[in-house]
Amino acid sequence: MAIIDLSQQVALGIDIGGTNTKFGLVNHRGEILAKDSMKTDSHEEVEDFIDELYENLQPLISQYCTDRELAGIGIGAPNANYYKGTIEQAPNLRWTGVIPFAELMTKRFNLPCKMTNDANAAALGEMMYGAARGMQDFIMITLGTGVGAGIVSSGKIVYGHDGFAGELGHTIVKPGGRKHWSTGSEGSLEAYASATGITITAKKMRAEFPDSLLNSFAEKDVNAKTVYECALKNDATAIEVFRYTGQKLGEAFANFVMFSSPQAILLFGGVIRAGDFILEPARRHMEKNLLPIFRDKVKLVFSELNEADAAILGASALVWEQS
Amino acid sequence: MAIIDLSQQVALGIDIGGTNTKFGLVNHRGEILAKDSMKTDSHEEVEDFIDELYENLQPLISQYCTDRELAGIGIGAPNANYYKGTIEQAPNLRWTGVIPFAELMTKRFNLPCKMTNDANAAALGEMMYGAARGMQDFIMITLGTGVGAGIVSSGKIVYGHDGFAGELGHTIVKPGGRKHWSTGSEGSLEAYASATGITITAKKMRAEFPDSLLNSFAEKDVNAKTVYECALKNDATAIEVFRYTGQKLGEAFANFVMFSSPQAILLFGGVIRAGDFILEPARRHMEKNLLPIFRDKVKLVFSELNEADAAILGASALVWEQS
Repeated sequence: MAIIDLSQQVALGIDIGGTNTKFGLVNHRGEILAKDSMKTDSHEEVEDFIDELYENLQPLISQYCTDRELAGIGIGAPNANYYKGTIEQAPNLRWTGVIPFAELMTKRFNLPCKMTNDANAAALGEMMYGAARGMQDFIMITLGTGVGAGIVSSGKIVYGHDGFAGELGHTIVKPGGRKHWSTGSEGSLEAYASATGITITAKKMRAEFPDSLLNSFAEKDVNAKTVYECALKNDATAIEVFRYTGQKLGEAFANFVMFSSPQAILLFGGVIRAGDFILEPARRHMEKNLLPIFRDKVKLVFSELNEADAAILGASALVWEQS
Repeated sequence: MAIIDLSQQVALGIDIGGTNTKFGLVNHRGEILAKDSMKTDSHEEVEDFIDELYENLQPLISQYCTDRELAGIGIGAPNANYYKGTIEQAPNLRWTGVIPFAELMTKRFNLPCKMTNDANAAALGEMMYGAARGMQDFIMITLGTGVGAGIVSSGKIVYGHDGFAGELGHTIVKPGGRKHWSTGSEGSLEAYASATGITITAKKMRAEFPDSLLNSFAEKDVNAKTVYECALKNDATAIEVFRYTGQKLGEAFANFVMFSSPQAILLFGGVIRAGDFILEPARRHMEKNLLPIFRDKVKLVFSELNEADAAILGASALVWEQS
């Protein structure tokens, strides 16, 4: 039997976004040996996109994989289905319908290829290289323009029967509450706790409090970042915007904890820059809504991965995942 | 290598309740070969209880396990911890503190012993012998005096990092809503959808509608059963009690589905006798709150196990569970 030196293996991690696609070669320790990016939306045909990706990657592979084995390809992409290796009806991509993306990649690269959505990839990245190393049960929450989630139970991502589990941003935290701008659902977590949701809350609250510093901004400049600036200047309304956001998050976290009893909830994304303005009320309202057996057990932890590299790292972790 | 004839194996299933303990010998097909019961609360010391259980079981084991192998013991018990094999601070049992129950059983019976709470055992029973045969992803909801849950993901019970996952009855469905009589939490599913919750709803609603048939009962006789009788007689208020209960259930189900994307939600327990009075609004409100990708996919299914035997069957299924 040949002995495989795992330390010499490399994974190709690819993150497909609506505008840009990032890719990199990653080793077992989560070190990115090389990385680059390209436009996602410059090819109408998915095959042409894959051809360009292949050409862009050849020089990196030649340089870094002469004495290292390229073990496989992991891809994070919107609406990616883990079981089927497809991208299905992704609203932000030019390629419509159900695309057998993993199969096309395997054909072009002659390598095994696995894919999942970006929040699941982020969870795998944290488990493999980041703040969740050694954890068997945790939930990853990404707080950006939207709210994404990846659930890990007994060391495995929860995919559900169809590969679409973990849509925690769309769980309802306030029945009959704020209507979601895109899904139309009422009172979902994303409607409150995403950057978009925070902007909506801020615009409502500044209208109620004319004295707030938030009123010094033009309508288009009210967003999570400017709310944060005002909160730092001790503006009571800006602080209340984050407190309200944190409350909604904490109430949702309590329900998540009573579902899968994780050791930790990991937080990632632009919104967490608001730090304790959001985190403190989130923790308080989570604890308040938990059964006693769950209290004071669950850690709320920030991601340890560099935000710029997290997507590549997470995608690459799919290659090391044990199925 | 000896060939083991699995069809000749038998599992001992034990269901420990606050008042009675049921036990039986079960084969791989879910046939109960023999069963009996005894009082749970007649012994102050847990060791004495186990001694009586052992004596009660000896005749059954001698009779049915001469040419069959007794493969192990599975136990469903309140506050049972799957990982540790303990019963911890169970409020309805006489034995206080943390009891190493599985270890005591193994010592007495000289057999491996696994235990979990009754809702998880019910889920295993359905997966092994009932309506969830062949399902890898489903959620079991027991609707009785309380609301219990067992979550199965990729063919395994979700236990969480500490063994306490799946407390879905205590998830909050209406923040700031009805205060729970025992936990003190506000707006939990159990506060609305348990038999106790239905009674509370019925008492509130009959006070609002003096014409309702529900007002023909003494206060102490208003309960899920009498509400059902009135609903059958087409009493609008009784029907509204169940519709409201179904709505709360359906809203909760939508959140559960977006968490673990199960093929089905299985329902068990006395409350489901209300049938479509609850199920129809539950289904409607579940679908309404789901993202489109989850709609029209999740089956709401009634348990296929005989209610009187389900607890023994569920406990016995722990023995066949692959770890």
